[in-house]
Amino acid sequence: MPATDFSAQEFADRIAKTRAAMEQQGIETLLITDPSNMAWLTGYDGWSFYVPQMVILPANGSPLWWGRTQDKAGAAQTTWMDASDLLDWPEEHVQHPDHHPVDSLAKLLRDRGWTSALGVEMDNYYYSAASHRILQNAFGDAAILDATGLVNWQRAVKSDAEVEMMQKAGRLTAHMHQVLRDAFREGLPKNQLVAEVQAAGIAGLPGLAGDYPAIVPIAPSGTEASASHITWNDRPLTQDEATYFEISGCYRRYHCPASRSLFLGDPPEDIRRAEAAVLRAIDDALSAARPGTTCEEVANCVYESFARAGYVKANRTGYPIGLSYPPDWGERTMSLRPGDTTELQENMTFHLMPGLWTSDWGLAITESFLVTANGGQPLADIPRELVVKSK
Amino acid sequence: MPATDFSAQEFADRIAKTRAAMEQQGIETLLITDPSNMAWLTGYDGWSFYVPQMVILPANGSPLWWGRTQDKAGAAQTTWMDASDLLDWPEEHVQHPDHHPVDSLAKLLRDRGWTSALGVEMDNYYYSAASHRILQNAFGDAAILDATGLVNWQRAVKSDAEVEMMQKAGRLTAHMHQVLRDAFREGLPKNQLVAEVQAAGIAGLPGLAGDYPAIVPIAPSGTEASASHITWNDRPLTQDEATYFEISGCYRRYHCPASRSLFLGDPPEDIRRAEAAVLRAIDDALSAARPGTTCEEVANCVYESFARAGYVKANRTGYPIGLSYPPDWGERTMSLRPGDTTELQENMTFHLMPGLWTSDWGLAITESFLVTANGGQPLADIPRELVVKSK
Repeated sequence: MPATDFSAQEFADRIAKTRAAMEQQGIETLLITDPSNMAWLTGYDGWSFYVPQMVILPANGSPLWWGRTQDKAGAAQTTWMDASDLLDWPEEHVQHPDHHPVDSLAKLLRDRGWTSALGVEMDNYYYSAASHRILQNAFGDAAILDATGLVNWQRAVKSDAEVEMMQKAGRLTAHMHQVLRDAFREGLPKNQLVAEVQAAGIAGLPGLAGDYPAIVPIAPSGTEASASHITWNDRPLTQDEATYFEISGCYRRYHCPASRSLFLGDPPEDIRRAEAAVLRAIDDALSAARPGTTCEEVANCVYESFARAGYVKANRTGYPIGLSYPPDWGERTMSLRPGDTTELQENMTFHLMPGLWTSDWGLAITESFLVTANGGQPLADIPRELVVKSK
Repeated sequence: MPATDFSAQEFADRIAKTRAAMEQQGIETLLITDPSNMAWLTGYDGWSFYVPQMVILPANGSPLWWGRTQDKAGAAQTTWMDASDLLDWPEEHVQHPDHHPVDSLAKLLRDRGWTSALGVEMDNYYYSAASHRILQNAFGDAAILDATGLVNWQRAVKSDAEVEMMQKAGRLTAHMHQVLRDAFREGLPKNQLVAEVQAAGIAGLPGLAGDYPAIVPIAPSGTEASASHITWNDRPLTQDEATYFEISGCYRRYHCPASRSLFLGDPPEDIRRAEAAVLRAIDDALSAARPGTTCEEVANCVYESFARAGYVKANRTGYPIGLSYPPDWGERTMSLRPGDTTELQENMTFHLMPGLWTSDWGLAITESFLVTANGGQPLADIPRELVVKSK
């Protein structure tokens, strides 16, 4: 998502929202390492997050991009920022045992006088314990505040332009599921099916090019499907087995995940019973998902439908989605589960995941939806059913 | 790479090597968060690294797998471990604002009496500053030692079985480059080309199914290519532009990255000059890459070839490769660059990256190689040239 995908005003609004949250939390300078948060504020896009990089947002003035020398050209190409606000650390410090890039960040912060009330994303993949130790040693523990999720929360309510992006991602997701349904057949090695589905998502549709999703296809079959994060192998698809596919189209880093289970043959009674419970759960949850309803109330619709069918589900049943980079397409703020009393707002977006796993099989029919005054509106148009291919 | 890919003896050897390094560094219990290190020791494979998980290796006795309840079935399916050594943290703590899974890890460690000389991977994507703070609070700073790279270093010299995996990955990489050469043509939108190449890598070859690489295709064109980690967009390929493709086949999590630049039309003189310098650099570096040669000596072959052609390259020119998970397919131990005096050993594997970037274009022709007594042996058979398609 280069900066050109959104208006200058939208980026200004995002920064203003973030600064209001910073002020509320007593943070003067925010150090943003989550690539999704970096992109949301500046447009920065590149597969460079395997080395330290940040967007630095002071209370006043322009934000700064800080990264590896070799990636500065990418920042110039993808962000809306002035060249003078793109700062780099020495290329020769890449993955070096004796130098850590964050040493140069500490110097930069000191040079600018940003040495207190620093917010850092303590629980993020791209802010390591080693990076944190360097800042602690430089500025002392009291100077550093935990800002995990601060920017993520600002992203929860989508702008109309963002909703449009997610609906486009949804069209890609629906296209991938169509290809999946068409290609699914006995004897086809799973990796070949995955190759076809993934290619469909990236080749996309006329005028709608696909980007890489933040998670690769999760596609376990049969008893494998009792494990929920198995990717794929080369085993041919087999009669009397269910496979579930958790996949997402990605349009300029925006996601719309959706899962469907597919079955070769005649599904046994217990899977059909689970299907009915899942479909009812989705109907009920989408009807409930209006502004003012809480996350836990939406989740309860799922648990109640499952309970009526004799299933107990203990894990959360959905999470917010939007702009993302690997390894997760969730936003890591709210959860659809007991105890989360956050109220839904119009233009929030969630992946509703009423999956059921037994020790023998896993069934997943899921929907990504937009919160509207009339309830949850699916972001992708995919037949909502267990896909069955009988002999 | 399920555990069945290697013999029980090989896993026992890996654990013995790791324990020897632990002893040398005064570590009694090693907490391993890097998914590549977890997989190398136990076979564990799943896209579950977006939540806290570890392999815990005590000085004696079996290692333990520790992760989310929902992923325990995946650990049972992919590792060689006993069911009683698979331990989980409560599913309801997933991405929960008031609970952190590492709290339950601290309890587990205390219950087993593992409260001192704990090794942690301080500089790893999957060990967050927040996780570290919990362990610091539980056991005190003095009880925790930095074990960044400890396991990675044990992986540097590949077993023959691993070399075979990497040669298979190399066949996939060569296949992807063949598809790329064939499909590359004026007017083709870049994302469609990427879709085709990626699908080729995953659909694979007869008897050789592809896995997902740890990095998605890096494929910038024209002036974009001055930025080194730009992925792709939907712009059609254009006459008189160079595009470089950094891609890797992946066979059961083992990688063999290779880059080629492709040009539509007649390449200008300076790109041809760069090509000649790069090809000479590869020849010289591969000849030098024998056991006993240092990393910096290999790198110097590249710099010298570039200097003769009038180019100055400042950044490192290669790194070790093997088993990997996103976001990086490098092993983060040695580097082919000045100052790294590590001596090569037989069966080490590197990605040699003599890329040249100017402000107008980037040229990359790279080779992954195996260190043998006769020098570096390419792991993939790909025509070594700037690929040119004239009108």
